[in-house]
Amino acid sequence: MVEKFKGNKLDPTQVLILGFASVIFIGAILLNLPFASITGKSIGFLDALFTSTSAVCVTGLVVVDTGTYWTAFGKTVILILIQIGGLGFMTMATLFAIVLGKRTSLKERLIMQEALNQNTLSGLVRFTQYILIGTLVIEGIGAILLSTRFIPQLGLSKGLAFSIFHSISAFCNAGFDIVGGGVSLIPYVSDPVVNITIMLLIIFGGLGFPVIVELIRTRNFKKISLHAKIVLFMTALLISMGFFAFMALEWNNPNTIGELDFGSKVLASAFQSVTPRTAGFNTIEMSQLTNASKLLTIILMYIGGSPASTAGGIKTVTFGVILFTIISVIKGKEDTELFGRRLSRFAVNRALTLGVVGMGLIIFITMALTISDGGFTFMEVLFEGVSALGTVGLSLGITSKLSELGKVIIIIAMFIGRLGPLTIAFALATQQRKNKGTIRYPEEKIIVG
Amino acid sequence: MVEKFKGNKLDPTQVLILGFASVIFIGAILLNLPFASITGKSIGFLDALFTSTSAVCVTGLVVVDTGTYWTAFGKTVILILIQIGGLGFMTMATLFAIVLGKRTSLKERLIMQEALNQNTLSGLVRFTQYILIGTLVIEGIGAILLSTRFIPQLGLSKGLAFSIFHSISAFCNAGFDIVGGGVSLIPYVSDPVVNITIMLLIIFGGLGFPVIVELIRTRNFKKISLHAKIVLFMTALLISMGFFAFMALEWNNPNTIGELDFGSKVLASAFQSVTPRTAGFNTIEMSQLTNASKLLTIILMYIGGSPASTAGGIKTVTFGVILFTIISVIKGKEDTELFGRRLSRFAVNRALTLGVVGMGLIIFITMALTISDGGFTFMEVLFEGVSALGTVGLSLGITSKLSELGKVIIIIAMFIGRLGPLTIAFALATQQRKNKGTIRYPEEKIIVG
Ligand SMILES: [K+]
Ligand SMILES: [K+]
Repeated sequence: MVEKFKGNKLDPTQVLILGFASVIFIGAILLNLPFASITGKSIGFLDALFTSTSAVCVTGLVVVDTGTYWTAFGKTVILILIQIGGLGFMTMATLFAIVLGKRTSLKERLIMQEALNQNTLSGLVRFTQYILIGTLVIEGIGAILLSTRFIPQLGLSKGLAFSIFHSISAFCNAGFDIVGGGVSLIPYVSDPVVNITIMLLIIFGGLGFPVIVELIRTRNFKKISLHAKIVLFMTALLISMGFFAFMALEWNNPNTIGELDFGSKVLASAFQSVTPRTAGFNTIEMSQLTNASKLLTIILMYIGGSPASTAGGIKTVTFGVILFTIISVIKGKEDTELFGRRLSRFAVNRALTLGVVGMGLIIFITMALTISDGGFTFMEVLFEGVSALGTVGLSLGITSKLSELGKVIIIIAMFIGRLGPLTIAFALATQQRKNKGTIRYPEEKIIVG
Repeated sequence: MVEKFKGNKLDPTQVLILGFASVIFIGAILLNLPFASITGKSIGFLDALFTSTSAVCVTGLVVVDTGTYWTAFGKTVILILIQIGGLGFMTMATLFAIVLGKRTSLKERLIMQEALNQNTLSGLVRFTQYILIGTLVIEGIGAILLSTRFIPQLGLSKGLAFSIFHSISAFCNAGFDIVGGGVSLIPYVSDPVVNITIMLLIIFGGLGFPVIVELIRTRNFKKISLHAKIVLFMTALLISMGFFAFMALEWNNPNTIGELDFGSKVLASAFQSVTPRTAGFNTIEMSQLTNASKLLTIILMYIGGSPASTAGGIKTVTFGVILFTIISVIKGKEDTELFGRRLSRFAVNRALTLGVVGMGLIIFITMALTISDGGFTFMEVLFEGVSALGTVGLSLGITSKLSELGKVIIIIAMFIGRLGPLTIAFALATQQRKNKGTIRYPEEKIIVG
């Protein structure tokens, strides 16, 4: 043991995984305490673990209704877990180090780098400060805007609690709500202030801090980095295409937006386009969507938000690189080109691999759920699996009815989904990487496709 | 127009696409003739086109029951279309050229190369002879084996017709049957001769001629090419894993194999593992499978058979390269290594792109079907879409109930599925490839995932 710590045998990704697992475990113990539940009885460890994982992994899938099941203590624990998960466990650790006056060591910064997926070591400490201040400012503004609706409606203390909880939950892309009754934000489907505030919080949270910081510093689209260009372009593309597609597919559906007035139809379609990436709130009943809209939601959940953000999924940049690679292949070009820049083979390979691994995980988790919970339709378990892997939190209503094995599968999916398939893969491969051989096999041609 | 032919503006892939389209069109006209239908009335052009596309693309999805709807003339047309599709339109053209004594030109051989996906130009004419002789020999042996069951059961002429039809249909991975009643091979679920003969025909057809020829020439696994090694390894892996998975998932399902004796359970599970890649016969009722088995079937249909064979799908080699690439990434290795060989970046990129494009096509076609045919469950349209794109022909029973738009979508899916997404993509990109610029954009780093 001493040997292990002394020798620094754990690499950053392993520390990250153990860190997340520890926070989830502590959260589960706290939520399992009798006074966390309004019934005064312990919820049971599996459901406590499920809720804690869902909070730390900012997913939002719930086995009990957050608003009515948990006490103030339980809700506070969940909110803290969301904030820790959203900011990222390792960012928090580094922040504590700064606050306590300790200099951050190279190793701590390396861990940070892994947590934030940043390319350079320099400026990581300052970057961390940006994150903390930025998060507090944005969540503060969000809470103030929401309080203009919640305080008049619910009174000062409850209204304030509502505003803070939902602002944090939205910016962290957590999707937990305390509205009660398991209806998410359906009661606010026509409220422009709540809708627009929550949507902006989700979008900012899902853009990722590197892009937000760059946007504040540089206001000229032509001058920003390729990374920020792809993030902004893909985000705008996905939101606008999702918006028009949802409106077209649901326009006449009486169970969703069919009976709403024009303004509410626009608002609900916009919200429905933003929330799968990867917030998890909903203002219309998900199970009532047409199959086409459900599939569209699944695609958006798979793609998710942007790198180094609070969002999940394979990420906008990954999807953008795949999209532009396919376009390049169709155009017969060797390189993946976008915005007048060429991408490295490594980036292209990594994006394609991530896309395929993401699909593979969806198939694996869905297959497991069809076996563990055979009573549900295929769409229901597919939707649930993608939602868990993308840390989205939308559901067709089966979460609380899952079998014990089904719950364990979703817990695993949320954990893998949050830490990223490749992070886990790399952590597993540390030994091999360290002993990386110098032998290179001869190349041989094959017929592909 | 003259200019176009003189200037050789059409490249091999475009000739291939136009050739296939022409054969399909001629087939549709023939099947649309009143005396092709047993009713004596024309079936209507859309259904004739559907049937012709299904036959030429060796898919096997049908809007009418082949055995009872078509006259002997209609069945013969279908069988010829299957044989043309199975051997490949361009192979046929080159064969005619040889038979008629004409020397094959470089251009014809280039077209052949495209059709067979071969790496070298040399020996293509001899290779074509192998194909013709090999096909006739294998289909002949298959027909003789099947006739030992069909002739005693149905009499000489009908038994012989049955044997020839199903032998060709199986080797070409077409999946058309003339058993009647739309039951495919369900009546023969417990017949070892029919099952094993059909399975072997499917497997040989799906291995691809390059591998069959290599197997005949070289009988030492260590000495064969990397391509053949991957094909044989992946085929064995997929069949054995599929076999055990189906047996486990369906063991207690009374609507499929639950009530069968042990031997029939083994036979049915083996058949169920072989047929999705990409034959399309079935010996149990597909719609009665568990959701887990349906998903497994979808995965096997997506993967399909091997390159340069009669099978569809993204191909075993593509899937193998993706699998080994992911393993290499997990191991932290830069190169994709398998069987002591290294793959070129180009092969890896092409495989990953094919995998992603295949997934994208499935999503696109399924989305279109959820819109055109909203009355079916998501699983039903997903299964149908994957079956069409993989040119498999299995169905949960919705083919004949599809809307007109739905039939058009399936026709397009079968055509795209047969000619390969990249073949079409390359054909579209000819102009760009010809005018390929020499400007290379500067490289810029981004954050992926
Ligand atoms: K979420
Ligand atoms: K087929």
